[in-house]
Amino acid sequence: MGVASKSGCGYFKMASFGKVIRKNSLNAFSRVVLRRDFTRGRHSLGLVYGEYGDPGTVLKLEEIPVAEDLKDDEIEVDMLCAPVNPSDMNQIQGTYPFKSELPAVGGNEGVGLVRRCGLRVTGMKEGDWVIPILPGVGTWRSTLISNCNKFLKVSSSTGLDFAATLQVNPPTAYRMLKDFVSLQPGDTLIQNGANSGVGQAVIQLAAAWDISTINVVRTRPDSSDFDVINYLKELGATEVVTEEFLHSHKMKELIKGYSRPALGLNCVGGDSSTGVAKLLKEKGTLITYGGMSRKPVTIATSLFIFKQLTCIGYWNGLWLTNNITNNRALIEDMFHDLCTLGEKGLLRAPRSTKHELINYKNAINESMKPFVSSKQLLMIKN
Amino acid sequence: MGVASKSGCGYFKMASFGKVIRKNSLNAFSRVVLRRDFTRGRHSLGLVYGEYGDPGTVLKLEEIPVAEDLKDDEIEVDMLCAPVNPSDMNQIQGTYPFKSELPAVGGNEGVGLVRRCGLRVTGMKEGDWVIPILPGVGTWRSTLISNCNKFLKVSSSTGLDFAATLQVNPPTAYRMLKDFVSLQPGDTLIQNGANSGVGQAVIQLAAAWDISTINVVRTRPDSSDFDVINYLKELGATEVVTEEFLHSHKMKELIKGYSRPALGLNCVGGDSSTGVAKLLKEKGTLITYGGMSRKPVTIATSLFIFKQLTCIGYWNGLWLTNNITNNRALIEDMFHDLCTLGEKGLLRAPRSTKHELINYKNAINESMKPFVSSKQLLMIKN
Repeated sequence: MGVASKSGCGYFKMASFGKVIRKNSLNAFSRVVLRRDFTRGRHSLGLVYGEYGDPGTVLKLEEIPVAEDLKDDEIEVDMLCAPVNPSDMNQIQGTYPFKSELPAVGGNEGVGLVRRCGLRVTGMKEGDWVIPILPGVGTWRSTLISNCNKFLKVSSSTGLDFAATLQVNPPTAYRMLKDFVSLQPGDTLIQNGANSGVGQAVIQLAAAWDISTINVVRTRPDSSDFDVINYLKELGATEVVTEEFLHSHKMKELIKGYSRPALGLNCVGGDSSTGVAKLLKEKGTLITYGGMSRKPVTIATSLFIFKQLTCIGYWNGLWLTNNITNNRALIEDMFHDLCTLGEKGLLRAPRSTKHELINYKNAINESMKPFVSSKQLLMIKN
Repeated sequence: MGVASKSGCGYFKMASFGKVIRKNSLNAFSRVVLRRDFTRGRHSLGLVYGEYGDPGTVLKLEEIPVAEDLKDDEIEVDMLCAPVNPSDMNQIQGTYPFKSELPAVGGNEGVGLVRRCGLRVTGMKEGDWVIPILPGVGTWRSTLISNCNKFLKVSSSTGLDFAATLQVNPPTAYRMLKDFVSLQPGDTLIQNGANSGVGQAVIQLAAAWDISTINVVRTRPDSSDFDVINYLKELGATEVVTEEFLHSHKMKELIKGYSRPALGLNCVGGDSSTGVAKLLKEKGTLITYGGMSRKPVTIATSLFIFKQLTCIGYWNGLWLTNNITNNRALIEDMFHDLCTLGEKGLLRAPRSTKHELINYKNAINESMKPFVSSKQLLMIKN
């Protein structure tokens, strides 16, 4: 779950973070040089922003030059499909901790088709599906050229939606379940924002690994909109409750039916984080990976002292960046696991709404509405 | 820094913790059987409570029977001096996570003189000064009998005040500086509640180990009361600022003069914890050991995700309990280090006000006042 600064859509403001900490550390290779005089050469069509601001205003569909020649370790990729994630919005708004060098192409996640390979590229060939490993590639364009190491080959048998949304949410869920607490079959975890992309992945991975999930969702303003509770149960959620229920006495009764959770996942903050933390077992861990309520994480002092709680954060982009050079096998194993679960039908792509690239404004607008239960996907090449 | 539930005295309420988690796990051996018919045998004079409630009301000075004979592994100790700590108040109020079996004797810390030793007691002899290692011994009495392993011999050369207040605050400071972040000479830490008993020990230990300290104290209502800033600087504080200053732009300027702190110590909560956390370096650690403001720990979501902050708690009683059996050498080494620093004048007892045991109500009342800069000590035997 990424974070953005738009009011009312469940994102939180970055003001408290204050300053840019990683200028271009992740996305230097996505920089584009726009030339207004396109008299020669090939071009890609993409969503470019030349200044930070409201994504609906600053993003423009423009032609972007594409090099004629490939370096030996480069691949040319035709992007097929790319989602609009909250963190993409942040980046364009200029509120994300690392900033693109402008002008830049939007989009960090997606799936593409290898069109050409440089002479020294191994393990990939024309026609393969690939996904970018790190954020910052600028996926909202029809064609891009990149060092082959920045991409990973994925099987096309999982489907376009699955592959397009594989790089951010499922790894966040996977690492939070694997790296912090040693969960065993029969154990329980509790999460809020359970209907988020990450939340849905958590439910499915936990179900596949025989871990019970207590899932908290925001009470939705329009109950006719979408039956979140049944949808999440159908994905494998053990229990689904509302925020209101979380803070009631009924929650204490419900939790008694399960082994006390050693792991809590928080992407909401405020009262919701307080409520989730309270239900953890002694020496439990609360991982924060988002802040939908735009309120800080608030934890009773006694939980730190007497219950020996640990609160930490998870940031998928940073984890991938930290491991891409020295632990590439770890990354490949994870994506292999995730794809295998996808092929078995145990991990599904999130519900989505598809938009042609030319209709990108609809995708942007929909993605910034509150309580939207659908991932907006840009269909770039069909 | 312990925690209590009395309003206005800087303690926080335990309501959010909800239930007793460790009935008698730490203090079973302090249980006393009171007999109203003292026709025979020896007696000790002590502060006893038969029910939980306001310490000023439920504590009574009573005679407590003392066994005639010692078991082979027991010592008889004449308590000399014992402090009144906030956690003692909590315990009597019944708001502490572990409860005494009633009736019980108050007090968890103090120094005593060995009067007699059982046949198999080694390493201690009549006339030695000893301190209880674990809380729960019931130190507010003139004489007690205990298994010798529950006590530790200390040198009398550090003085009565030092030894009486050695068991709770200095170890809390010591472990928080040693066990969470690898601090090197030249590094910086930041703490709030810097005038607390633990805060003063932190300042002195850090100064002895060449670690700079940025110390935040509450703005005091009566400026004529006591010059906290100069007192803490005299103890070795590198910088002392008020809460108001912490939240001002001046704080950002001040912090630039130091290596960014990897460690933050919080015994206040609320805005103060927010402000301290914000100043930590990437991957910094915030340890909570108290909650003077009675407000929860509140941390910006972005600090967890983008700054990879870790928030944890420290509880001295639990650390000692966990280590007394299998790591006794670790405990002994720590107290040896602390006493050595005391003998060198590098670690001093906190400022204190002394009361005869019979005047215990004054000690209790003073200890529960807000902004008291003095530790209340019960002088039991002189």
